[in-house]
Order: sequence, then C-alpha cells, then structure tokens
Amino acid sequence: MAGPTQSGGGNVKVWRNARLATFAENLTGMGIAEKGAVAARDGRIAYAGPEAELPNEFLKSETVDCEGRWITPGLIDCHTHLVYAGNRANEFEMRLAGASYEEVARAGGGIVSSVKSLRAASEDDLVRESTPRLRALMAEGVTTVEIKSGYGLDLQSESKALRAARRLGHEKPVTVRTTFLGAHALPPEANGDKDAYIAKVVDEMLPAIVAEGLADAVDGFCEGIAFSPEQIARVFDKARALGLPVKLHADQLSDLGGAALAAGYGGLSADHLEYTNEDGARAMAQAGTVAVMLPGAYYFIRETKKPPVDLFRKHGVRLALATDSNPGTSPLTSLLLTINMGATLFSMTVEECLTGVTRNAAHALGLSGEIGTLETGKWADLAIWDIERPAELVYRMGFNPLHARIWRGQ
Amino acid sequence: MAGPTQSGGGNVKVWRNARLATFAENLTGMGIAEKGAVAARDGRIAYAGPEAELPNEFLKSETVDCEGRWITPGLIDCHTHLVYAGNRANEFEMRLAGASYEEVARAGGGIVSSVKSLRAASEDDLVRESTPRLRALMAEGVTTVEIKSGYGLDLQSESKALRAARRLGHEKPVTVRTTFLGAHALPPEANGDKDAYIAKVVDEMLPAIVAEGLADAVDGFCEGIAFSPEQIARVFDKARALGLPVKLHADQLSDLGGAALAAGYGGLSADHLEYTNEDGARAMAQAGTVAVMLPGAYYFIRETKKPPVDLFRKHGVRLALATDSNPGTSPLTSLLLTINMGATLFSMTVEECLTGVTRNAAHALGLSGEIGTLETGKWADLAIWDIERPAELVYRMGFNPLHARIWRGQ
Ligand SMILES: [Zn+2]
Ligand SMILES: [Zn+2]
Repeated sequence: MAGPTQSGGGNVKVWRNARLATFAENLTGMGIAEKGAVAARDGRIAYAGPEAELPNEFLKSETVDCEGRWITPGLIDCHTHLVYAGNRANEFEMRLAGASYEEVARAGGGIVSSVKSLRAASEDDLVRESTPRLRALMAEGVTTVEIKSGYGLDLQSESKALRAARRLGHEKPVTVRTTFLGAHALPPEANGDKDAYIAKVVDEMLPAIVAEGLADAVDGFCEGIAFSPEQIARVFDKARALGLPVKLHADQLSDLGGAALAAGYGGLSADHLEYTNEDGARAMAQAGTVAVMLPGAYYFIRETKKPPVDLFRKHGVRLALATDSNPGTSPLTSLLLTINMGATLFSMTVEECLTGVTRNAAHALGLSGEIGTLETGKWADLAIWDIERPAELVYRMGFNPLHARIWRGQ
Repeated sequence: MAGPTQSGGGNVKVWRNARLATFAENLTGMGIAEKGAVAARDGRIAYAGPEAELPNEFLKSETVDCEGRWITPGLIDCHTHLVYAGNRANEFEMRLAGASYEEVARAGGGIVSSVKSLRAASEDDLVRESTPRLRALMAEGVTTVEIKSGYGLDLQSESKALRAARRLGHEKPVTVRTTFLGAHALPPEANGDKDAYIAKVVDEMLPAIVAEGLADAVDGFCEGIAFSPEQIARVFDKARALGLPVKLHADQLSDLGGAALAAGYGGLSADHLEYTNEDGARAMAQAGTVAVMLPGAYYFIRETKKPPVDLFRKHGVRLALATDSNPGTSPLTSLLLTINMGATLFSMTVEECLTGVTRNAAHALGLSGEIGTLETGKWADLAIWDIERPAELVYRMGFNPLHARIWRGQ
C-alpha cells in the first residue's frame, strides 16, 4: 500500500527547505534555523532544526519542499469569548451616532443583550454562529484557541456554551481549551446581589461543570463593574479545591490588585492589565503568571492607559497577546492584527509579539509542554508562511500570508 | 442556446430578495431598500430599488436569490500606493527594537529604500508583487482601486510603476485608476535641489506620462519633508494645462495650507488632513474637494492629532476613507479595517464610514457618474454581504463577511 512512508513504526512527514522560527525556550531570540527541517511522527514533532542534521531515519519519508518559506509554531489565541450569539453592531452604531451608555442600555444593549441572545440560542445555533469566527482565526495559522463561557450566567446556559466550544474543537482541526467564566457579570435575575450570585457560581455551577468535564480552567472579571477581589477569591478557592487552574480579567479599568490576586493563586495568566502596578508585576513574575495583553479591547473601547509593558519586562513576566474576541469590546477575529496592535499600540518588539502568540500563549494555557514551540515531543502544529522575515507577520495590517497550516501533523 | 436570458437586447442579470444600501445621493441615510432587487444589463445597473417595482422586462432574466443578504456598491479604495517592490518590515522591526530614525536611515531605510527597490524591479516584478495586495482588497468587495506612482522619481521608473498599475487593472476584474505622484519625495540623485527636481517633474515627466496616457490624475506631497506649496503649485499648473485633475497629500504633519491649495485648483481630493484648519475646510467645501482620511497611516505612525472631522461636517465637505496602502507608513490591505479605524479612531458614524468607501470615494476619483452608488446607469459593481445590518461592516475587526463580488455585472 502506497500511503505515507512509515519510519520508526509511525506516520511520518517531513518539511524541508524551510526557515524555522522555533521559539524554543533554550535558544536566543526567536530560535531561528535558516536552513531547517521539521519531521512529525504520529502528529508529534520528531525533529526540528537544521536540515543538515535531520536524522537519517527521516530521509525516505513523505516530504514537503517548503521552497524557503518560514515555519513557525501554529499560532495560539489564548483569550477569546468566541462562542456567542448575535452581535452588538447596533450598539456600536448608536454610540457612534452619539448615544450615551445609558441610552444604549435602555435600548437593551450592553452585556445583558449578549446574555439574552446566548440563553435563547441552542447549542447548534452557537456552534453555527461561532464557526465562521473560528475559521477566520484558523485561516491565519491559529491551531489552538481558548474559549470562555460567561454569557450564560446560569448553569444550563454556561454548560451549553462550553459544550458548543468543545464541539468546535471536535469538528475542526484545532485544539480548543475551555474556560469557565461564570464570574463574568451579574445576571439580571440576581437583582444586584453579587454575593448570592457568587455563591451560586461556587456551590452549584462550578461543581457541575467540573463533573461534566466542561472546563480546563476557571476565570473571573475582577472590576468595579463586575466582582470584587474577595468574591473572585471565593471562586478561585473552589477552583483550587476542584483541581482547576485559574486566570483573571484583571486591572482593565482600575487597579484592584487583580494581577497580584491571580498570582497569589498561581494563576496561569492575568489578562488586560492596563492598570496593573509594580507589585502586581512582581507577584506575577514570582508566580510564573503570564501577562496576557488584549490590544483589540484597548483599541475598540478607546482606552488610553496602556498596560505597563516596561514593568513586566523589568520583572521578567512572560508577555502574551490575544484577540479577546467578543461582541461587546473586541469583535476581533485576526490574531495577526492583534500582534500588529501589540507592536503599534503597546510598543512590543517583533520578538515579543510573536512569542506572545506561540510559546508564551502556551504557558498562559498551561500547555507549555505540548505546544507553542517547534521542539521534539510537542504536537506538530505548524504555520507555514509566504514571507521573507518573521517581522512581516507583525508589520502588515489586514493581510494574510499563510501558505499552509498543519495541525497535529496534518 | 441556453445562455443568460436576454432582455432589451443586452446581457441581463438580476439579484433579488436582497436588502440594498444604495447610497444614492438623493435618498436619506444609506438609501436602504429592505426588500430590494438590482438588475444589470451589459455591465451597467438597469434597475436598483424595491423588488416589488422591478420592471416586468427583468422578470424572466437570469436571477440570483440573495436570500436576504445585503448588497452595497462595490467598495472603492480611493488612495493607495499599492505598486511597490519589497517591504519595510525590517525598519519596523528596528524601530520597535529602539532604533532612532537616524539609525534606520543609516541602515538604508526610509522612502529611499522603496525607491531603490522599485527602480531595481521590472514591470513584471511589480505586477507579481502587487497582485496579492490587490487580491486582498478585492476579497473584501473592492471593485475600484486608485494606485499612485511615487517610488520611481524618474521618468522611466514612474512610467514603469504606472504601467504595472494599468496592467493590474487589465488582468483582474477590478477598475484601476492611476495617479502620477512624481512630487512625492526628492530622489537621492537630486542632491537636495527640490526646485530642480520639480522642474524635471513639470517639464519632462508629466508631459511624457500624459502623452502615454498613463495617469488619470496628478498628486503631490505638500509637507516640510517633501515639497512646498509653491512647488506643488507648479506641478498643479502643469497638470491643469495638460487637462488632468489634481489631488494632494495635504496637512498630514503640519499645516501648510495644503487643503486650501488643493481646493484652489478644484482638486478632486485633499488627503490625510490631520492639521487642516477651518479655512481649508471651507475652501474644500466650496470647491467640492473630498476629504480623504487615511486612518491606517495615522495609526501606524502613532499620530495623535486627528483630522478635523467636525469642521468638515460643519462646512459640508464630503468625507472619504482609504487604506493609503504603502510600505512605509500604512502596510494596510483591508478596506474593512480602514472603516473600523475611521469609526474607532476618528469617531465617524457608520453612515459616514460606508459612504466614504462608496459614493464619496467615487467623487474623490472623479467617477461619481460611473460608480459608488446603486443607481441606474452606473457600472454594476456590487458587494453582497453575509450580514444582518450594514453597521457590521464597520464594527468587526479582521473578519470578512463578503458573500460575492460583482464587477461590471459579472
Ligand atoms: Zn476577555
Ligand atoms: Zn498616500
């Protein structure tokens, strides 16, 4: 049978005549190999490095000539709210026409409208509406996407959203990681009682969602308009008791010490971070909590305070970037545009931007052993680009130079 | 023979069950018809309006059921420098890494590097390198693109670039309008003598380019770092004598009265306009000169002074938006992202943003009789969208909801 050549007993494929940006942790810069090759066996990377050192066992395998193109790790969007119903273009239009937030709210706008739409949608509806957004990300070489709940705000609806997210990952060649964000906003039926709602998240929703295996992590929104550090801590205590890692929407609009709170729980990441102070940065560095910056939301809501990238650099905090794809504050489905924003709006370097959607984004998902770099043993998630240098991925706006996308060797 | 049904002797096609945003000048707002139809004959619009009033003669023509999708005029990108060689991702990378403009210049960066690359490229090279950029625009429903020269800066190279632009228009189903921008920058061999170079533009380059029919309009860059109003006036006098309309890169970095200068020559447009004052706005309104705003460049160079949209509104100046697609200050090839920037960065309304890439962009090219609205007699250039309301085209970032694109009825 003339299938792909076998080597070492597995399904083997080799990409040669490529330039690699491996982002390997132990290499300097982007870990570049100018004349490189990648070999995959059974979906895992079996070799990544100089073509001249490609082990003999791969020389007779099925081979793709990359004609000098660049290979990077498949991109990782480590913070999205991709599963939602409807959109909020009408609010956007009203606001541009001069309507106040109050007028928008009176017209049924704001997060409440997303909650209403999501509750009314079926799981099938959610999968169908979210698929084009996922496709847009994948078309740019994204091979892993985190998806949060948080528009359901009751057990049934949160579970429905997370099931839809899981299904997207099963239906498409992409890794989906789910995050339970019950503590996103107060549902209308809570009548303003945040403590009672948090009790429901902790006592009812979280255990049921963990029992069904619907979430890989737990998130919250720590902000004056959302939940207090004390309320978030209750959620995090429960997540820890149930064995789930945490992350946090922290310090987006004000400094409530959210970054340090997340770090105190060994959080995978703290996200947004416009108002994070130096203590927060220090705590994140010590805990290994990744700083996930979301320039799409910063841009869309016309924020002017930038996250303290210099402080994160000073203390050695890992930097990541993500779309925050959501209907209210970041209707963004381009991770390439996101990294351009990281450079243009937050003055991140090319290397920081690209590490932020590969190696460091993997850390933000607790997947640093599995994805994010071109290293032996990790999944063979690759993006192959029609570019002359990695900087082009950051420099261009609204242009997709992806040549091919490989997920788990295929 | 079972070809498309004929009606009235021409090749006829009908799109029905659509929602139209016609942008017709005599209608209010976006000129919406909620249950509409468009008929094309021989590439021109033969009807656009309520489906109930579609003339009988079209009832038996070849018909497309749009299933409730929205139809807008094909989009128009009325200001680009799309034809160039190489890119300047390396400069971008250097600047993000902390290099000063001087260091970038010493490394061969800046517009000089684009001039060098363009001069070294063949016409075929230019077509080949520019085609993916043109395709990216077309993929978002763009049916007309203006392309400027300005990286050649000698007759042979400027002509080569304009020929490449013309060829792009012949090879692809898109209308290309060319603009001669010899007065873009001073070439290195001019040794700082701006007046001598302008004399060359006026006496040698412009007449030859007009004789070969390579340009539809003439443009200049009026700025301290480029040419003075007096120098630009010499170019414009010659353009007028040769019968070509003018437009101007005006008031981008400082107020040299560029907007009023363009208006004084009955310019089709003045472009950028961050520093335009009220006299300039008034002059533009009186002359019918369109204000073409270029938020991609504003964003990319981290400008903070916004063009005076309020003044333009107050005086009734037409507003347009364009990508300014170019390697140095706006490597942008998404007109949808451009209109999101118009809304987000310049607070333009949804209607202004969309009119700015349809009806008003046609005015900026002197093509208001031919394109830019869904009205009888104009080219049947259509964009058909998978959206629920036109605002979605402005609201989303990095998402392309185009369902189909029609250029001249096909
Ligand atoms: Zn978020
Ligand atoms: Zn320009």
